Amino acid sequence: MQTTTTQNTETVINGVNVTRLGQTIEAIQSRPELAQFRFRARNQWDIGGHNQATVDTFHGVCQEMEHKQPFTFDADEPTVLLGEDNGANPVEFVLAGLSGCMTTTLAYHAANRGMKIEEIRSEYEGDIDLQGLLGLDPNVRSGYREIRVKFKVKGDADEATIQELLRKSPVYDSLRNPVMIKVEVQKL
Amino acid sequence: MQTTTTQNTETVINGVNVTRLGQTIEAIQSRPELAQFRFRARNQWDIGGHNQATVDTFHGVCQEMEHKQPFTFDADEPTVLLGEDNGANPVEFVLAGLSGCMTTTLAYHAANRGMKIEEIRSEYEGDIDLQGLLGLDPNVRSGYREIRVKFKVKGDADEATIQELLRKSPVYDSLRNPVMIKVEVQKL
Repeated sequence: MQTTTTQNTETVINGVNVTRLGQTIEAIQSRPELAQFRFRARNQWDIGGHNQATVDTFHGVCQEMEHKQPFTFDADEPTVLLGEDNGANPVEFVLAGLSGCMTTTLAYHAANRGMKIEEIRSEYEGDIDLQGLLGLDPNVRSGYREIRVKFKVKGDADEATIQELLRKSPVYDSLRNPVMIKVEVQKL
Repeated sequence: MQTTTTQNTETVINGVNVTRLGQTIEAIQSRPELAQFRFRARNQWDIGGHNQATVDTFHGVCQEMEHKQPFTFDADEPTVLLGEDNGANPVEFVLAGLSGCMTTTLAYHAANRGMKIEEIRSEYEGDIDLQGLLGLDPNVRSGYREIRVKFKVKGDADEATIQELLRKSPVYDSLRNPVMIKVEVQKL
């Protein structure tokens, strides 16, 4: 594990600059408003199950910010769900987001505790019963009933610590616990 | 709106083949096991906040299926969150998934009710307080506190119907209501 020997050297563990991470935490402790982030996306329907989402700007550390480049995502349904398979299914985007979030949360939090991680691989499988979306059974929800996650990790952290750190993930929390969603509709 | 005149003509509304949609619903009503889908993703950590998710196979209509091609997604953190901005942030993937899902749910359900939609655009903004992820305040959750959604829709459906149909979205439900998530960890 890399460690500092002088005040001017920055420590990097797991690719995370923990010197800057520590400075960020100190800054937020004195000014909690720096921690208020607003993330965004917008979407344009194409046809049928095909639409395109764009992510470019966000708000954080008390200012408007933008990514180096806009990120665009085609979503579609596979043929069996009457689409043309031009992109992943929206419910698969959620698993992709969950995977990125749990992975990054582990790498960052382990770094912050001085634990070096060499490898992280993970798999996700979620159950959806289409009777819910189709309104065929009022007792069946439309969303994921259960998501199973398997992590394989090589590094300093033990299993219990890895389990603890993974559950700090913002996407894990957003799925595990209810999120308030407010929907406005405007007719054109 | 396009309508059938003979038994052999298939009706397509909003790009959705409602003839096949009706057949799918009938098939599920007689064999509910056809409606049991399992969606998947896997993830490989690169370094720091950078990792890559892959979506390719899924299970549905009682068989293993795969997309026409694998879909891969780079996730990263922006510079302000100590990443290199090689991809959208994982919490932004969730908004992208929510946007695709609400859009498709509206297009499909409107089609199923015979309502033609000409245009759907939408915007998403979600609040995350990083004090939660960083463990600086035990009363602050790590995930989204609130997500605000704005839809602009041109078409036959009225506002109340659009609101009703949007809330059938599986990703909306997955965020709005708790999802069971089981996590296994294996040390390599």
